Amino acid sequence: MSEEKKVIHAALLGAGTVGGGVYKLAKKMKKEIPHRIGCELDIKKVLVRDASKSREGIPKEVLTDNWDEILNDKDIQIVIELMGGTGVAKSRILDALSAGKHVVTANKDLLAEHGAQIFAAAKENNCDIQFEAAVAGAIPIIRPLMQNMAGDNITEIMGIVNGTTNYILTKMTEEGVSYQDALIDAQKQGYAESDPSADVDGWDAARKIAIIAQLIYHTNVTFADVYTEGITSVMPDDVRYAGELGYVIKLVGTTKYTDGKVEARVHPLMLTKDHPLASVRNSFNAIFVNGEAMDDAMFMGRGAGSLPTASAVLGDVMDVMRNIILGCCGRVQVENYRDIPVMDIDEIQSKYFIRMKVEDRPGVLAEIAVVLGENEVGIANVAQKDTADGVADLLFIIESVEEAHMVEACEAMRSLDCVYSIASVIRVY
Amino acid sequence: MSEEKKVIHAALLGAGTVGGGVYKLAKKMKKEIPHRIGCELDIKKVLVRDASKSREGIPKEVLTDNWDEILNDKDIQIVIELMGGTGVAKSRILDALSAGKHVVTANKDLLAEHGAQIFAAAKENNCDIQFEAAVAGAIPIIRPLMQNMAGDNITEIMGIVNGTTNYILTKMTEEGVSYQDALIDAQKQGYAESDPSADVDGWDAARKIAIIAQLIYHTNVTFADVYTEGITSVMPDDVRYAGELGYVIKLVGTTKYTDGKVEARVHPLMLTKDHPLASVRNSFNAIFVNGEAMDDAMFMGRGAGSLPTASAVLGDVMDVMRNIILGCCGRVQVENYRDIPVMDIDEIQSKYFIRMKVEDRPGVLAEIAVVLGENEVGIANVAQKDTADGVADLLFIIESVEEAHMVEACEAMRSLDCVYSIASVIRVY
Repeated sequence: MSEEKKVIHAALLGAGTVGGGVYKLAKKMKKEIPHRIGCELDIKKVLVRDASKSREGIPKEVLTDNWDEILNDKDIQIVIELMGGTGVAKSRILDALSAGKHVVTANKDLLAEHGAQIFAAAKENNCDIQFEAAVAGAIPIIRPLMQNMAGDNITEIMGIVNGTTNYILTKMTEEGVSYQDALIDAQKQGYAESDPSADVDGWDAARKIAIIAQLIYHTNVTFADVYTEGITSVMPDDVRYAGELGYVIKLVGTTKYTDGKVEARVHPLMLTKDHPLASVRNSFNAIFVNGEAMDDAMFMGRGAGSLPTASAVLGDVMDVMRNIILGCCGRVQVENYRDIPVMDIDEIQSKYFIRMKVEDRPGVLAEIAVVLGENEVGIANVAQKDTADGVADLLFIIESVEEAHMVEACEAMRSLDCVYSIASVIRVY
Repeated sequence: MSEEKKVIHAALLGAGTVGGGVYKLAKKMKKEIPHRIGCELDIKKVLVRDASKSREGIPKEVLTDNWDEILNDKDIQIVIELMGGTGVAKSRILDALSAGKHVVTANKDLLAEHGAQIFAAAKENNCDIQFEAAVAGAIPIIRPLMQNMAGDNITEIMGIVNGTTNYILTKMTEEGVSYQDALIDAQKQGYAESDPSADVDGWDAARKIAIIAQLIYHTNVTFADVYTEGITSVMPDDVRYAGELGYVIKLVGTTKYTDGKVEARVHPLMLTKDHPLASVRNSFNAIFVNGEAMDDAMFMGRGAGSLPTASAVLGDVMDVMRNIILGCCGRVQVENYRDIPVMDIDEIQSKYFIRMKVEDRPGVLAEIAVVLGENEVGIANVAQKDTADGVADLLFIIESVEEAHMVEACEAMRSLDCVYSIASVIRVY
């Protein structure tokens, strides 16, 4: 490397929670970085909406609200996109790649929707696109999947990849509070937004699962392909009964390869208490991976937060710097060389927990059992609980069955006079 | 890349459990590998002691017992060393690097003793040296530490990095059996060797901790620097009492940075049951990492076994192939740019569990408490247990104190007439 290249310049797009964290961490590690990779990092510009507004810890002269100032600056070789969203961020990233600038991003929304386009643009321009922080924040998962496990076939991934919902479900499990109360607490703690939809409806988790699925199955999977159910209808009774039966309810994103199709789904899932994911509490994230050769593995850590996410971003930036120094950018590629269909939710096989409100009289169970049998749905376990005013809670654990059969069985049960309501249907691992 | 380079040739040194696994996995993944990294892998030669002996799954013509045949073969660009040991393996690796061949190894013994020399030789020859499988088998830890966390300061690592001892301790904890019986079971299951010393005396774990410590603190730490205690003196009573007090005993390797020194040690450790490492059972390995920015993270998986280890080795081989294709070998370096002393075990601060056999009469506790106080050792918790024939079990949890004080206090207690023996001293996290 020639002398004048001993500093690599980058620009940061966005100075919010994560952007501010990256600036702060890069400053703190300024003297260490050259020792570790032989080159200094300079964050030359920080793109913000209003450059006249001062940002704590970021010098005023670094701030700009003019994208062209960054795009046309030949010194800037790396663009760190932390604005989020699929609109402006997408055009900035595509512009940067066209200009031969390498991109590090934490933008899961963008990659889950337009990943194929972004990855193709990076390849075409021989540029790096790195996105470790887009899935599960500080937890190393993208690099392990793309490099450590490159020589293996991943059979299944199950992830708790949204800290907000894990915090809410932990509260509900450990303190018996309602979803609403747990949500208010999560908002107070700063874990949930004032509009919590993206988290509680499972969209955030679904985006991460879409990204993971395409990496491990080498096929295009987008956000729209991922079946998604959130946690808003999980009731304290479900959590309590799950506990009594030896289960914990978690919002789990699953992707696996079954019968020539890719499953990709996010929904509440009952896990036995000894499953490694069951003990992942509060806002922690964790990803469980099974590979044909590697067997089971699990990775746990901080899925969000300013500095944890910044640590993943800076790791990526330093990796891009190594590639720039050695002239090997575009070294690790997302290779979608397969074309595998995504399985419809109706086709998946699963066990189920069903909680129903039924008439409290002899013979009711028999009537329901007949309907389940007619729909080829097998009962693994049944229990009658809290009875009051002639109404009983009836709980079933259903043996593994195709979802379509389960849906039909529920339809048929609802038409029985003795069934007042099917309060919950939750998949069981 | 020119057409004639579409195949990269490698040689395997060793066809044992891991070597055989690598050959098998590379064969199974033969068609996938070019899709994933744009190049085919051919394992051209397998070095064994006796080439006339047939090996299941490896064609006879591939076997050789002549190292020069590999060393002088210009086609062979990667040497995969899976022989183990610090003698022949070392000279083979140094020969290979001198000849400009890249090296992938799972040899923890070698790297823990001669890492600095091997890494320097790789750098000098502009060659890759990759060793993901040397620490914790299939668990991605080397690449995450060197790349994902490159922009962070790691404050502490605690690892269950030996599956044999974790299996034995799990048996002792869950079934109440003795160390000897658990060892025999581990040998029957194939988890322990007929001479189990390297595992049960903690040496294997200490080697892994030495490797990790030098990576994260950028200073030379060798096997000899790591204080090591094994599990052979852990008694069923210790395990049982630990359980009653809310702890689990694990063999834990720790490395952290304290007061300008590096701590590096392996010993039985009592962990509270809610610590993430406490629930890592049987032969699983797990590594808990804390970084200043990333906060807590944990990685769990298979630390040994033919195919799990092979998956880590093949991931490394494919990473080297990427570097060969792009001409960027030596891309990630072990940079020991610091010179930090390793802390003597006498200086470490720790909490302790002490189990003593004492005379069963009033006043004994007072006598002992006085001696502890004189040595500046604080008592967090004390309990008297199983009393028989005038002898009582006395249990202490000692507040955090410098090891030297604890050793002196034990010395002083042993000289008391009322103390028959100090049965166990186990550090507490």
